[in-house]
Amino acid sequence: MKKLINDPANVLADALRGIEAAHPELRVDHQHRVIYRAEPKQDGRVAIISGGGSGHEPLHGGFVGPGMLDAACAGEVFTSPTPDQVAEATAAVDRGAGVLHVVKNYTGDVMNFEMAGELAAADSGVRVETVVTADDVAVQDSTYTAGRRGVGLTVLLEKIVGAAAEEGQDLDAVVALAQRVNDAGRSMGIALTSCTVPAAGKPTFDLPEDEMEVGVGIHGEPGRRRVPLAPASEVAALLVESVLADRDFTGSPAVVMLNGMGGTPLIELYVLYGEVARLLADAGVPVARRLVGNYITSLDMAGASLTVLGADDDLLRLWDAPVDTSGLRWGV
Amino acid sequence: MKKLINDPANVLADALRGIEAAHPELRVDHQHRVIYRAEPKQDGRVAIISGGGSGHEPLHGGFVGPGMLDAACAGEVFTSPTPDQVAEATAAVDRGAGVLHVVKNYTGDVMNFEMAGELAAADSGVRVETVVTADDVAVQDSTYTAGRRGVGLTVLLEKIVGAAAEEGQDLDAVVALAQRVNDAGRSMGIALTSCTVPAAGKPTFDLPEDEMEVGVGIHGEPGRRRVPLAPASEVAALLVESVLADRDFTGSPAVVMLNGMGGTPLIELYVLYGEVARLLADAGVPVARRLVGNYITSLDMAGASLTVLGADDDLLRLWDAPVDTSGLRWGV
Repeated sequence: MKKLINDPANVLADALRGIEAAHPELRVDHQHRVIYRAEPKQDGRVAIISGGGSGHEPLHGGFVGPGMLDAACAGEVFTSPTPDQVAEATAAVDRGAGVLHVVKNYTGDVMNFEMAGELAAADSGVRVETVVTADDVAVQDSTYTAGRRGVGLTVLLEKIVGAAAEEGQDLDAVVALAQRVNDAGRSMGIALTSCTVPAAGKPTFDLPEDEMEVGVGIHGEPGRRRVPLAPASEVAALLVESVLADRDFTGSPAVVMLNGMGGTPLIELYVLYGEVARLLADAGVPVARRLVGNYITSLDMAGASLTVLGADDDLLRLWDAPVDTSGLRWGV
Repeated sequence: MKKLINDPANVLADALRGIEAAHPELRVDHQHRVIYRAEPKQDGRVAIISGGGSGHEPLHGGFVGPGMLDAACAGEVFTSPTPDQVAEATAAVDRGAGVLHVVKNYTGDVMNFEMAGELAAADSGVRVETVVTADDVAVQDSTYTAGRRGVGLTVLLEKIVGAAAEEGQDLDAVVALAQRVNDAGRSMGIALTSCTVPAAGKPTFDLPEDEMEVGVGIHGEPGRRRVPLAPASEVAALLVESVLADRDFTGSPAVVMLNGMGGTPLIELYVLYGEVARLLADAGVPVARRLVGNYITSLDMAGASLTVLGADDDLLRLWDAPVDTSGLRWGV
């Protein structure tokens, strides 16, 4: 295992110190492992929290800031945050208008955020609502999930509901919006290599030099099948066809994200995006906005995932609204 | 070799198609392999061009846009752009105030940009000036260079001179500024793994599982020495001590970049930055601004480089000026 770390047991604590040093616009609670905006949102606005296992950076800490999240709760690598962490963050960010929990559909995350919501409601009277993202078309159930896994759509959802909260929409409206985004987005990923969890010290799975994993999850969970390594044009077809087979994306403007898994260089993502864009055009999907880069990663895994969100004028307006985070920034 | 590409011979052409599809705010000249702003700069402003071999993305194409570059000339992977390419771009971006070429110190780049400047001056009467970045403290001469290699400081320089050109400084002032930045910046890098050039199909060099290359160049050129793989705290000390041994950075505000080489996940960069920040503080270097992420990469290489620029109020003002590129964006 070759990694720029100290003790594998301290990766999260060490990374949080680096995040704090790198980002004066953030405040890090090292005890509870929560990343907050240094300057909290104004009173009367809905607050938005997300979180999950670490190792997916910039998700979620890199999306804390004006126009997106109020706080991110960081679990150990690939491990859910605890209910205590999330409850602490929930009480801290509430500005009197309630808190939305954005939770990726993994069993541990769902359970711990649910307990946290109950704790925060009981202890501080905060009104908490939850949206569970479930956009991965690869598998119906997985090692870590009942139902579809929550993956790349989480990034797009955090951006859009973040904008709605910032402009003063109330909790019911923000929850309805989150559900609308969740219903209209689909994702699919492939891996060329495994990732290596620091505490494990060896690759999560073995993948021969001439094969790739189709439908991989963001922790290296198995996908649909293994196939021979293929050119980017065929990888793009696999991703696009899987997503389009699951939902009709013609007839409304789409937001598209081609995401790197952490170990894939940007030049390869652009090669792949050229193919994806051509296939989406051929299929009659009108791409209105696009992101190409590393947004929800799996440590050092080489691979990519495609997320497509069927949008409308309202969602595009919220997409275009200013955002000022280290992971996503424009217009501020 | 596991890569998301089609034919290894077409990686650049394919990537340029992806860049064009991903970025409507850019215009790609596929024949000359130049990336321009879709909306050119206003007349009377100095234009700024950079370029070099591909495989370092987001450098340079990702830095084309308001507040930074006017065009980027893309060579094949790790290969200099041709004089024709650069001359074409130089003539195209000139707004009557002259053009600055920002060139990393590699023999081929320096020679080809020089010829391009002469061509453009002869053919179109454009006034061309050049700054050659040379910030890598690792080696005095290298396989590809007479004198120090130009590496991470190039990113910081492009940002700062881009802001000066945007606010209307004339070519003499922009050139003097570029030289000032170049004189005040130093970089040092390490690699945990080699990179693999697509056309070569195998790693550029072999690096045993328990070793790292100290002072590596951005093409995998050998550095100062190989040492046993070390914890992040020791890697940080190597980087910081090498940079600080070469120039005194106490007494003026510093801009610091901790850059990933392409294959290193963000969580590791934050672990390393935590150590770097502590060491710089201990050494009395007042860090005023910082970047942590992938800005000048070496394909899929795992590793990191540190760049420190001794700034002043004027440089910080230009650093903070609005920039709107895919690789660096704030305040617009």
